Amino acid sequence: MSAEQTPRVGIVMGSKSDWDTMKHCRDMLKEFGIVADCRVLSAHRTPHAAAEWAETAEERGLEVVIAAAGGAAHLAGVMAAHTVLPVLGVPMSAWSLDGLDSLLSTAQMPRGIPVGTLAIGKAGAVNAALLAVSIMATKEPALRDKLKEYRKSQTETILEQKLD
Amino acid sequence: MSAEQTPRVGIVMGSKSDWDTMKHCRDMLKEFGIVADCRVLSAHRTPHAAAEWAETAEERGLEVVIAAAGGAAHLAGVMAAHTVLPVLGVPMSAWSLDGLDSLLSTAQMPRGIPVGTLAIGKAGAVNAALLAVSIMATKEPALRDKLKEYRKSQTETILEQKLD
Amino acid sequence: MSAEQTPRVGIVMGSKSDWDTMKHCRDMLKEFGIVADCRVLSAHRTPHAAAEWAETAEERGLEVVIAAAGGAAHLAGVMAAHTVLPVLGVPMSAWSLDGLDSLLSTAQMPRGIPVGTLAIGKAGAVNAALLAVSIMATKEPALRDKLKEYRKSQTETILEQKLD
Amino acid sequence: MSAEQTPRVGIVMGSKSDWDTMKHCRDMLKEFGIVADCRVLSAHRTPHAAAEWAETAEERGLEVVIAAAGGAAHLAGVMAAHTVLPVLGVPMSAWSLDGLDSLLSTAQMPRGIPVGTLAIGKAGAVNAALLAVSIMATKEPALRDKLKEYRKSQTETILEQKLD
Amino acid sequence: MSAEQTPRVGIVMGSKSDWDTMKHCRDMLKEFGIVADCRVLSAHRTPHAAAEWAETAEERGLEVVIAAAGGAAHLAGVMAAHTVLPVLGVPMSAWSLDGLDSLLSTAQMPRGIPVGTLAIGKAGAVNAALLAVSIMATKEPALRDKLKEYRKSQTETILEQKLD
Amino acid sequence: MSAEQTPRVGIVMGSKSDWDTMKHCRDMLKEFGIVADCRVLSAHRTPHAAAEWAETAEERGLEVVIAAAGGAAHLAGVMAAHTVLPVLGVPMSAWSLDGLDSLLSTAQMPRGIPVGTLAIGKAGAVNAALLAVSIMATKEPALRDKLKEYRKSQTETILEQKLD
Amino acid sequence: MSAEQTPRVGIVMGSKSDWDTMKHCRDMLKEFGIVADCRVLSAHRTPHAAAEWAETAEERGLEVVIAAAGGAAHLAGVMAAHTVLPVLGVPMSAWSLDGLDSLLSTAQMPRGIPVGTLAIGKAGAVNAALLAVSIMATKEPALRDKLKEYRKSQTETILEQKLD
Amino acid sequence: MSAEQTPRVGIVMGSKSDWDTMKHCRDMLKEFGIVADCRVLSAHRTPHAAAEWAETAEERGLEVVIAAAGGAAHLAGVMAAHTVLPVLGVPMSAWSLDGLDSLLSTAQMPRGIPVGTLAIGKAGAVNAALLAVSIMATKEPALRDKLKEYRKSQTETILEQKLD
Repeated sequence: MSAEQTPRVGIVMGSKSDWDTMKHCRDMLKEFGIVADCRVLSAHRTPHAAAEWAETAEERGLEVVIAAAGGAAHLAGVMAAHTVLPVLGVPMSAWSLDGLDSLLSTAQMPRGIPVGTLAIGKAGAVNAALLAVSIMATKEPALRDKLKEYRKSQTETILEQKLD
Repeated sequence: MSAEQTPRVGIVMGSKSDWDTMKHCRDMLKEFGIVADCRVLSAHRTPHAAAEWAETAEERGLEVVIAAAGGAAHLAGVMAAHTVLPVLGVPMSAWSLDGLDSLLSTAQMPRGIPVGTLAIGKAGAVNAALLAVSIMATKEPALRDKLKEYRKSQTETILEQKLD
Repeated sequence: MSAEQTPRVGIVMGSKSDWDTMKHCRDMLKEFGIVADCRVLSAHRTPHAAAEWAETAEERGLEVVIAAAGGAAHLAGVMAAHTVLPVLGVPMSAWSLDGLDSLLSTAQMPRGIPVGTLAIGKAGAVNAALLAVSIMATKEPALRDKLKEYRKSQTETILEQKLD
Repeated sequence: MSAEQTPRVGIVMGSKSDWDTMKHCRDMLKEFGIVADCRVLSAHRTPHAAAEWAETAEERGLEVVIAAAGGAAHLAGVMAAHTVLPVLGVPMSAWSLDGLDSLLSTAQMPRGIPVGTLAIGKAGAVNAALLAVSIMATKEPALRDKLKEYRKSQTETILEQKLD
Repeated sequence: MSAEQTPRVGIVMGSKSDWDTMKHCRDMLKEFGIVADCRVLSAHRTPHAAAEWAETAEERGLEVVIAAAGGAAHLAGVMAAHTVLPVLGVPMSAWSLDGLDSLLSTAQMPRGIPVGTLAIGKAGAVNAALLAVSIMATKEPALRDKLKEYRKSQTETILEQKLD
Repeated sequence: MSAEQTPRVGIVMGSKSDWDTMKHCRDMLKEFGIVADCRVLSAHRTPHAAAEWAETAEERGLEVVIAAAGGAAHLAGVMAAHTVLPVLGVPMSAWSLDGLDSLLSTAQMPRGIPVGTLAIGKAGAVNAALLAVSIMATKEPALRDKLKEYRKSQTETILEQKLD
Repeated sequence: MSAEQTPRVGIVMGSKSDWDTMKHCRDMLKEFGIVADCRVLSAHRTPHAAAEWAETAEERGLEVVIAAAGGAAHLAGVMAAHTVLPVLGVPMSAWSLDGLDSLLSTAQMPRGIPVGTLAIGKAGAVNAALLAVSIMATKEPALRDKLKEYRKSQTETILEQKLD
Repeated sequence: MSAEQTPRVGIVMGSKSDWDTMKHCRDMLKEFGIVADCRVLSAHRTPHAAAEWAETAEERGLEVVIAAAGGAAHLAGVMAAHTVLPVLGVPMSAWSLDGLDSLLSTAQMPRGIPVGTLAIGKAGAVNAALLAVSIMATKEPALRDKLKEYRKSQTETILEQKLD
């Protein structure tokens, strides 16, 4: 594996069915040349693997952790409990309540262990990637420039849109 | 410690401020002669201690685990992930949203790891004790009789209430 | 009927249309060799039958009662009012509000009569079975071992999942 | 007891603490010369007494039943299940969620057993009395006239209000 | 028109699209031999017609008014403001929020003008008819007997349901 | 009454208790030299007076109508049904649900009869005044200039704020 | 471009996918002979263009601004921050929560910068047009007459509707 | 100003009244030796100053931006629209709805412009500081060590708590 291919961001999700949404997170990171280590890990069904994955995230070279889960969405909280890396949470719209349960379970973390929560579903998946990039860019001018390019191009695309 | 004093139920709570509410759970168990092992343990701030406490609950002789937490209330879920003992969750009304966040975070567990969730706050604290007793009573006729006595007396108390 | 076929768990549901969901509860119990007595009973439309069913549950040998209902979901509460057996509630997503009404009607029981509430819908149906098993396992080492096997196998299944 | 003092409306409430609110219901009925039979009865803690009370309501001469409860507010539903008299429900704001749980538990009754639900709390308590009066007035011109008087006077009171 | 065909119940709805749901209300009344006068009337788009309809409801011989509307569902409130007949409200699930807006707009009436609110959608439509029947039955033993028959038959239908 | 004192904006509110909040609306209008005609009028308890007030608003010289109500807040809708003047609604936080019922009852108006809804409570009361001013300013340069002055001064006040 | 074709209303929307809904806004304005200037502009992705568009709205001859957005719907707020023209907001039902997020983000503006919020989705889109017309009509008798015609015809259409 | 005193984090809040809560954010940063630049800036009332502050944040040496606001809480979104620095949002519980409006307005950002949202109120204020520290720590081993120390000490504090 070449240096460029070393994963810098970890993406974990509570269920394989979240992959359709979280693929957009991986793809957005790829646009910035960032490789992601993607895994299904459940806060509840694989607690040891999840804890170990989080505890070793730093030594494996990861810089940011993104966790996606639905319902009583504890995965991001578990990640944050086991690492001091920045943890970003993506609430998945699950089997009922349209994502409200996932949003509250991810965002309402108690004092002491932070999770930066993004929007429910695909918008959140893409934005988690962009926030991870902006975090990595804090000390990496080239990445920051890419981010500015991305923003500029996004702005132009919208301004060019015609109605009817 | 005499046999009667061996704790049969574990009560864990995410913050010392939950104790005012959860005391009612301990007291109700005491009415049935059940000793509880009460601890502050945080899913996020003491994850190893919480996991270890849950993993050793069975060998320490506990039969039921009751977990109370507020906000993104993951404590009951962490307990359930680390033990096959029955886990009961009590959502605490925390710093905002009047307990809705805690209720959803506790009840909406994904398939595979169950938490039996009680009502928000004090009603839930008392009922968690009563449900724990009914669980222990499934094989213990004397305890079941006590439970029937309790119910009967509760019914009578209400029927005796006078308005004005 | 052989001894193994004596129902140990009762599953009641407020409407025949809940059966598609609650079948998963029955099936999960079957995986553990537990036979369930399944019935449609309505808190409101068959109140006497529901009360009688609950009152005789214990003498019929049932050890745990699981009740599923939607909307103003009172069935679990009715069960709990008429038996001291542990009662577990499964909120069904009904004709509107995505299960929020069912969840609140099942979980927010007043002090004195507990219902252990699981997640809305199928996740809750399966988890009610697993919680019932864990309750029965409190005094039955063989069942507890099976539960540990189930958990282990569940963990392995998830860890083996590959993305893409 | 003179004929005028025979209760025509039954008011039941799940907890003695609801009386402060439901007193306004009794008082409004009194304004119309209607005597109410007021009782604490719990759907869950006194299920037999509640069922029996409802089943004998008609023969005791009651014409309308008003039931007030909070949380998983099943009392109105229990009343409706056991009588064909019109049942009106008043959701009480209970220990959390500001009455939303009580409103949904009272209003979202399944097809077949109706409860006419009023507003949460005191507004609902007063309006339950007024709706009961309008029901009794359907065949009683004198009562209907009183109701029209009440409305007229209410309208005038508001129109006379001065700001500042 | 023969005497039996004189409408005794008025059913108004805010939009023609509510008719698919409210037809079930009309049909249930028909089962009890009650003819309903059904109309589209909008609290907002036909305020004078709505007010006049309500004000003349009594003299036209109506005994109960049922009003169905969605969104900011004011129709039942308008009816109740213009008649002292009992008014029942059926919240329709409209273009968003799954009926929560309609439920709150119908149920949360201020002190002085009551609306008896039923469940959202079809369950509420059917139950409004049943509650109207029970109101008319308060002075009409034959109708009350029919209602008891209906209840009995409903109970039997459910008890005969077989699973699988 | 001098020309300057002719009311150009009508402020109606469903209950005298709303005046504490709506006074801020009147005061803000006064800052712009706009006189308001303030009245308690209830959609439900004074329906004729409310309808008449709205229907004559235009001929009385009013240019904008502001309506404030809580609970099933129909007052703004009633205003809008009876006038083609612009109607602005201010949801009041009433006896429960923290204003959610009022907001939905005011904002979710069906197609055809618009209400421009402001924020719940005092923020909405002040903003209703400002929106009314901006409406009147569409053809009145002097008023628009005053509005720009107000905005500028508001901006400066905030920029001058010091923390600690 | 003839005088009649000069846009008097601006319609901005946060995403091209909102156009299907907002077309109904444009069409309703057209019915009144009002030309609208329609644009995709994002509060977040094209902040400068959005601010500039709002700041120059007045000098470009616009009289009312209508802004539609979903999720954390800030577009109407941005418009209102940069112009003293009346700003109307239409919450779009976006990727989750059924429009509740959009409604709260649009309506709950802080004191000082008002947005007149309409209903979620298509009803709001049409009503924003009608409210804009009523605003422009405050000084334009011919337009007000058209509006009265529209109302009258709308009333007649509803009164002619037949059920079954 | 010495090098250590150069602000590395910007804290902006929509109202001076948020300072009581956000002070805890500043204080937590101070514990880590991080100086914060704290300002009242309103997305709506000071839009130019807010945009300019965000646009120059990077060149002023800021590495992370924290924005706190209530109601239709757009401030974090405005920050994120004008800088590629990581932006963290703290929803303030404002004048109604207990922070739900603020949470949804902050978290539900559309694809393209991310905000990492923390819990409502004080818990979120403290956690925003901790997440900012963990972001700055991604390339600063000494800061990461401090963060680990903080976590360790926090864990110990909780484990030492005694009940009763």
